[in-house]
Amino acid sequence: EDVQGRADPRHLAINKVGICDIRHPVSIAQRVGGHQSTVATFGMYVNLPHHFKGTHMSRFVQILNAHEHQITVDSFKCMLGEMTERLEADNGHIEMSFPYFVDKYAPVTREKGVMDYNVNFIGNQRGQKTELYVEVKVPVTTLCPCSKDISDYGAHNQRSLITIRVRAEKFFWLEELIDIAESEASCELFGILKRVDEKAVTERAYENPKFVEDVVRDIATRLNDDERFRYYVVESENFESIHNHSAYAMIEQDKDAPAA
Amino acid sequence: EDVQGRADPRHLAINKVGICDIRHPVSIAQRVGGHQSTVATFGMYVNLPHHFKGTHMSRFVQILNAHEHQITVDSFKCMLGEMTERLEADNGHIEMSFPYFVDKYAPVTREKGVMDYNVNFIGNQRGQKTELYVEVKVPVTTLCPCSKDISDYGAHNQRSLITIRVRAEKFFWLEELIDIAESEASCELFGILKRVDEKAVTERAYENPKFVEDVVRDIATRLNDDERFRYYVVESENFESIHNHSAYAMIEQDKDAPAA
Amino acid sequence: EDVQGRADPRHLAINKVGICDIRHPVSIAQRVGGHQSTVATFGMYVNLPHHFKGTHMSRFVQILNAHEHQITVDSFKCMLGEMTERLEADNGHIEMSFPYFVDKYAPVTREKGVMDYNVNFIGNQRGQKTELYVEVKVPVTTLCPCSKDISDYGAHNQRSLITIRVRAEKFFWLEELIDIAESEASCELFGILKRVDEKAVTERAYENPKFVEDVVRDIATRLNDDERFRYYVVESENFESIHNHSAYAMIEQDKDAPAA
Amino acid sequence: EDVQGRADPRHLAINKVGICDIRHPVSIAQRVGGHQSTVATFGMYVNLPHHFKGTHMSRFVQILNAHEHQITVDSFKCMLGEMTERLEADNGHIEMSFPYFVDKYAPVTREKGVMDYNVNFIGNQRGQKTELYVEVKVPVTTLCPCSKDISDYGAHNQRSLITIRVRAEKFFWLEELIDIAESEASCELFGILKRVDEKAVTERAYENPKFVEDVVRDIATRLNDDERFRYYVVESENFESIHNHSAYAMIEQDKDAPAA
Repeated sequence: EDVQGRADPRHLAINKVGICDIRHPVSIAQRVGGHQSTVATFGMYVNLPHHFKGTHMSRFVQILNAHEHQITVDSFKCMLGEMTERLEADNGHIEMSFPYFVDKYAPVTREKGVMDYNVNFIGNQRGQKTELYVEVKVPVTTLCPCSKDISDYGAHNQRSLITIRVRAEKFFWLEELIDIAESEASCELFGILKRVDEKAVTERAYENPKFVEDVVRDIATRLNDDERFRYYVVESENFESIHNHSAYAMIEQDKDAPAA
Repeated sequence: EDVQGRADPRHLAINKVGICDIRHPVSIAQRVGGHQSTVATFGMYVNLPHHFKGTHMSRFVQILNAHEHQITVDSFKCMLGEMTERLEADNGHIEMSFPYFVDKYAPVTREKGVMDYNVNFIGNQRGQKTELYVEVKVPVTTLCPCSKDISDYGAHNQRSLITIRVRAEKFFWLEELIDIAESEASCELFGILKRVDEKAVTERAYENPKFVEDVVRDIATRLNDDERFRYYVVESENFESIHNHSAYAMIEQDKDAPAA
Repeated sequence: EDVQGRADPRHLAINKVGICDIRHPVSIAQRVGGHQSTVATFGMYVNLPHHFKGTHMSRFVQILNAHEHQITVDSFKCMLGEMTERLEADNGHIEMSFPYFVDKYAPVTREKGVMDYNVNFIGNQRGQKTELYVEVKVPVTTLCPCSKDISDYGAHNQRSLITIRVRAEKFFWLEELIDIAESEASCELFGILKRVDEKAVTERAYENPKFVEDVVRDIATRLNDDERFRYYVVESENFESIHNHSAYAMIEQDKDAPAA
Repeated sequence: EDVQGRADPRHLAINKVGICDIRHPVSIAQRVGGHQSTVATFGMYVNLPHHFKGTHMSRFVQILNAHEHQITVDSFKCMLGEMTERLEADNGHIEMSFPYFVDKYAPVTREKGVMDYNVNFIGNQRGQKTELYVEVKVPVTTLCPCSKDISDYGAHNQRSLITIRVRAEKFFWLEELIDIAESEASCELFGILKRVDEKAVTERAYENPKFVEDVVRDIATRLNDDERFRYYVVESENFESIHNHSAYAMIEQDKDAPAA
């Protein structure tokens, strides 16, 4: 007997039901060509109408196992549709987060290093409508303009974490979002730096001081200018080198929202 | 010169700017009377109009330091209003999360133990409008009805984490939300249990099997019946004892929303 | 000028200096053949004699980048030796932790699922002497014998995390340590279980109750019987389903230690 | 019947058995006088001789509940002795970690702020011998000497976390260890800084560049000069503002160890 399919007397629909904190190997398409192997953590959910007692938890895992795991924005959308159909649901929601690696070359010596970024794919299906969001988390350097301004020498700087989330409608590479974040910080980070490279990044940051407010505004300006991104959120958290807390700023923009 | 007060040429308003990951001692009013001392982590933010270059980060910390930190829903609302005014902003947002301790008595021996719960207060001010949300995270036991049904003996059970978030409009105690969560699980947890107590909780859970879907529906039913709660979200994450992932369910309800 | 190579007037040797919290893609040899791709977090350190001012941080990253990253116990040992030599040090220490995936088949239906385990490789070089430790973290089910004994029906059970660390002297597969942990728990976990499988694992756990003390003793007995493992530590942390804290036990054994 | 007291046929002693991840409110003696309330996470363990089947888990919790929780190094030692006796064990081990708050005054304006530090107490009893270790984790600023040296202007700096662990034999205040860490970094952190304070800390860090190696050596020199500390470990982890990984150094010293 199918316990999960029984009628439920409470007449309460469930917004989201499914599995989370499940890890799987995946491979992700790269701008330089080919795919890279990495490890993703998934959350997979559907809605449950009020008249069903339960969902079928094992089907979520079957969908995860069946997939080739060569994930692109398109194949992720397929997986979302397949899950929603297979679970006989109207709405579906998948989150997939993974570390993503990009080769980077030191600014002067061009020595090759590797940088790692956390990436999330978030997909929502509501009936026939599907929305996909892509989020990259980009660690950077920020240098404080106020500190530079008032001090006879030096300026406090620190590692900061920029998060850009966009609604994915037209094609773009993860690397494009990373490039925007890195070019609008005081300086970008590198896996490896020799002495002449370290001089270059130190001076670059000092020439380019930015408050946390500046970082999110400058990135928002770039995203405003790119017609592919109709909706975005940009955040920066600066792990202040002079405090034991963070400075934070966030801009959210929906270009298609009716003017207030 | 006030760098932060300078005009900004980018004409971009910032939704949220402030500080986060800052810890402070606080004291919280208890249903049993008096206050308990604990430690909270804060995030404090305001909006920034497009014509200002930056906010005044040190003022957030001053507000945190000035407060008595005998936090109630009312004093939290005051702190939110004071912050928004002091930062010359229209909108303000504070999050405060802390562990909260409640004495509990073992079900048979009545031996006194202590249980700890994570609690969040979330306040939003938009112009003159203020909304407060209170969230409690309640660890419980859940026992699987399917496993009990199909097995000749035993049934898998596990620790689960129930989250209830309500919009706080009328007065209630944190302990009331905790009571609802604990009474609608398969069984509640205790700090200390002697042998006869362990027998009682084992049998209680076995007599009371619940899917993750049942837990959120039964709690939702309780919250639906309580007129003080106009809006709520209830979640349960079951750390499955037979899998290395979690089962999850969520119901969100706004009683005052127009019917779809 | 080589600042790091300058003499240091404080005459204090440094036990460990290097880099940590650095992620890299790696691939790991599997018992079923071939390699699997995963992502590792590294800590890499050497000692620094008292007469040197500093180490050369970028060399650690170069070693990480240079390696093929088809990691076996042997290639890990090579990497440790290469690092120690390249940094002109006497002692070296590398830690590498990564999720590792193993296909598992449900006990009755044989449906194929995937399980994930956290693994650490830890290497110490002191002069010419090299020691390697391999650690696997295996999530399992434990069912409480006392609860079963005293209750009219049911028994509390929960997810537990078993950690086995061995000194790697003779060849073994990661999967062998995983097998030992899983076979000595009340029951093993699976990625996917259908109804008949769920019945099997529920009954298996109920027939096989174990205290946290039993789990570590039974695994220790297995490791004592295996001549390849001269030194081990075995731990279990049970995320109690009736408490909001864990039960824990640990046995450490050095078979070659002189009797006390 | 006492299941835990039954004879065990495996003849394997257990090194550590007990409970962990349990939170309790505590209060800690302060150098400025009085006690401060905070929240601690405990791990409590004893050994178990080979002839006993299990330990009595609920007794650990009873000891935790019974204590006044006005914790000093002396009362912590009492708790360790009481636990070991009550569990009829030879060896006992307690770990207690908590955030600790200290009022600090901005360097120029003297505005009062609060700093938070993570502290651990670790106690080992082996037969009649008791050892206590106290560990403080102190966030600071470090500024890179190499970056300052080679750059025309500026120098990269970042938040770092210094850990000092000492064996507690003679009396000292937590604040004394914090003072040592903060005075030997490039600069200390503050909860609140006004503009003139920010100028002071920026310039102080720039005047006082230190590699991660310098930080641990300078702290080790201070600890070597203090006769109260016979054993210590000092670590620094620098969250590099130019990389996405950390630089790390550690010195361990046992002043009473026989010369090698």
